[in-house]
Amino acid sequence: MQLKVIAFDADDTLWVNEPYFRETENRFFELFQDYLPQHTVARELLKTEIDNLTLYGYGIKGFILSMIETALRISEKTIPLEVIERILQEGKDLLQKPVEIIDGVEDVLNALKGNYRLVMATKGDLLDQERKLKKSKLEHYFHHIEIMSDKREDDYRKLIKHLDIKPEEFLMIGNSLKSDALPVLNIGGHAIHVPYHITWAHETIETTIENKNFRQAEKIRDVLKLL
Amino acid sequence: MQLKVIAFDADDTLWVNEPYFRETENRFFELFQDYLPQHTVARELLKTEIDNLTLYGYGIKGFILSMIETALRISEKTIPLEVIERILQEGKDLLQKPVEIIDGVEDVLNALKGNYRLVMATKGDLLDQERKLKKSKLEHYFHHIEIMSDKREDDYRKLIKHLDIKPEEFLMIGNSLKSDALPVLNIGGHAIHVPYHITWAHETIETTIENKNFRQAEKIRDVLKLL
Repeated sequence: MQLKVIAFDADDTLWVNEPYFRETENRFFELFQDYLPQHTVARELLKTEIDNLTLYGYGIKGFILSMIETALRISEKTIPLEVIERILQEGKDLLQKPVEIIDGVEDVLNALKGNYRLVMATKGDLLDQERKLKKSKLEHYFHHIEIMSDKREDDYRKLIKHLDIKPEEFLMIGNSLKSDALPVLNIGGHAIHVPYHITWAHETIETTIENKNFRQAEKIRDVLKLL
Repeated sequence: MQLKVIAFDADDTLWVNEPYFRETENRFFELFQDYLPQHTVARELLKTEIDNLTLYGYGIKGFILSMIETALRISEKTIPLEVIERILQEGKDLLQKPVEIIDGVEDVLNALKGNYRLVMATKGDLLDQERKLKKSKLEHYFHHIEIMSDKREDDYRKLIKHLDIKPEEFLMIGNSLKSDALPVLNIGGHAIHVPYHITWAHETIETTIENKNFRQAEKIRDVLKLL
């Protein structure tokens, strides 16, 4: 590998994210526990989120709007307005969660920062990701921050062009095979998958990646052994 | 002026934006017309928006969430759920508005593109602004697109550093004295104010700018005479 740039996904790669969403979802499910089984509410919420993804994009604000829409639909507009108020508050709470750095992240960033240009490349709401980066105190490790509306091949092509490097000089590290590994490998870059113990249903894929530029890690610290 | 980069604000500078928000707001006011005077609803909505700005940031999704919150509060949770459904739909409609380029914009971009690096610098939801840029068919004029969570002095300092130029080589053109002119002038850049016939209350300021780097235009076409 002739790497110049190592890019890190943020949510569930650098810091804890999905567990906070899950906690909020669980409280959402509880609002309907007397009427509907949890798996039905979960399925309906995911359906709303995916239907709205092209319009709302990734991030908490779209998630809140999708929860409200789902609440109206599955209750056939019979829930009290207190439920809507509660969902709005859940969203505000989610936007103000502390940022908990995943174990080993700082060791890896410290070990790599002198030898590579480090980049953070993440999806989500612009302001929310900037706020989390600031709270994380990791900003100083990164040469460049890219907050992307999506992580498809074209989005990575633009990022690599912007960084003025070749795809083979780019390594992406992240917890999503679908967003962090596959599109990067498809355009000739390198990828290391560092799984997180829970993944959003929309980010999961059933596949085995066979690509000479792909490495599987168990923990973020393994990255150092793989380079 | 030894300009290298000319940056354009997007909403209400390159394309029509605020009128769409106003139309949506007017339909929101109508929902309460039997209970509350319009100016009261307008004041309450603006209050909610400003209170939520640090948490939600700029853009349509935050606006929808603030409309829902305002509807709950001013009705003391007595509105039917159809109102919430209606607000969600208004938000989706707003996200899908056509992009109408303001008269003269293409002439100005065409005249300038050979002599300067042109940049688009805008606030708002990442995905929404990217979508509008794509719909606008103006993307090819721009060397760089910057979607910012805010437009304060520090945000412009970062942009200018990223563009690898000096502040005095940077000109910002936009419809907001508060966001497009003042912070840029304060850090040593140039600004041209091109007013739009309506401005969001939160963007209006009562001031007269006296700065050798500031120019007032009436229409976007005047920019060519001022350079």
